[in-house]
Amino acid sequence: MATSQAALDEIKLAMASTNDIFNKEVFGKRNFAALADVYTKDARILPPGGSMVTGLPGITEFWANLIQSVNATSAVLQSLEVMPAGDGLVEIGEATLAIQPAGQEASDLRVKYVVYWRQDAGRWKWHVDIWN
Amino acid sequence: MATSQAALDEIKLAMASTNDIFNKEVFGKRNFAALADVYTKDARILPPGGSMVTGLPGITEFWANLIQSVNATSAVLQSLEVMPAGDGLVEIGEATLAIQPAGQEASDLRVKYVVYWRQDAGRWKWHVDIWN
Repeated sequence: MATSQAALDEIKLAMASTNDIFNKEVFGKRNFAALADVYTKDARILPPGGSMVTGLPGITEFWANLIQSVNATSAVLQSLEVMPAGDGLVEIGEATLAIQPAGQEASDLRVKYVVYWRQDAGRWKWHVDIWN
Repeated sequence: MATSQAALDEIKLAMASTNDIFNKEVFGKRNFAALADVYTKDARILPPGGSMVTGLPGITEFWANLIQSVNATSAVLQSLEVMPAGDGLVEIGEATLAIQPAGQEASDLRVKYVVYWRQDAGRWKWHVDIWN
């Protein structure tokens, strides 16, 4: 399925909006309910050093625990490549997480990620999310 | 784009054949040229703790170094989910690498992975490969 440049540009804006929710709402305001606007209902995350988590409730619990345990305040995402893949998209990117665990200096944690995006309820959301 | 079950079953056999080359040729026989049958020419790998590597020559160098440095002898891949994605596929899986670094006991290294598959020169190959 061909995706025109104009359509792709529009999709990239929608993706940036989703990524912004992850950064500003979920990390910035600890509004974990906003994860419903980031992940599809049956999304999968594959966190380093842990098991795959399937479904929005488990994913919400994962991020709530992680954000609170390392005292994270932002997660700035940068798309490096976006590849149209049928009804979805494959994105390669880099994330910078600002963290300050109890008793430690504030620091930045950098990760690489691959996200498989799907449309869900009129929004572009993360359906498969893996990072390292 | 809909993919029939019969077509998907056939693709899964082709995927298993590619995965077998990675295990038996690349890891088992250290035939690193066989990586050309596993990865697309402009594939990307995102290894934990390192930078993204783009293109078959760099990817070949990466695996040759890693396999030799940890004395790996096999990489058994197990597909957990295969999601048709336009002309490609998104696969979630688990890999078990048998390794025996110099002076250490033999051990198994288990990783989770996501691969974005594309067709290239009549074969199904890995176009984006990330693991942790």
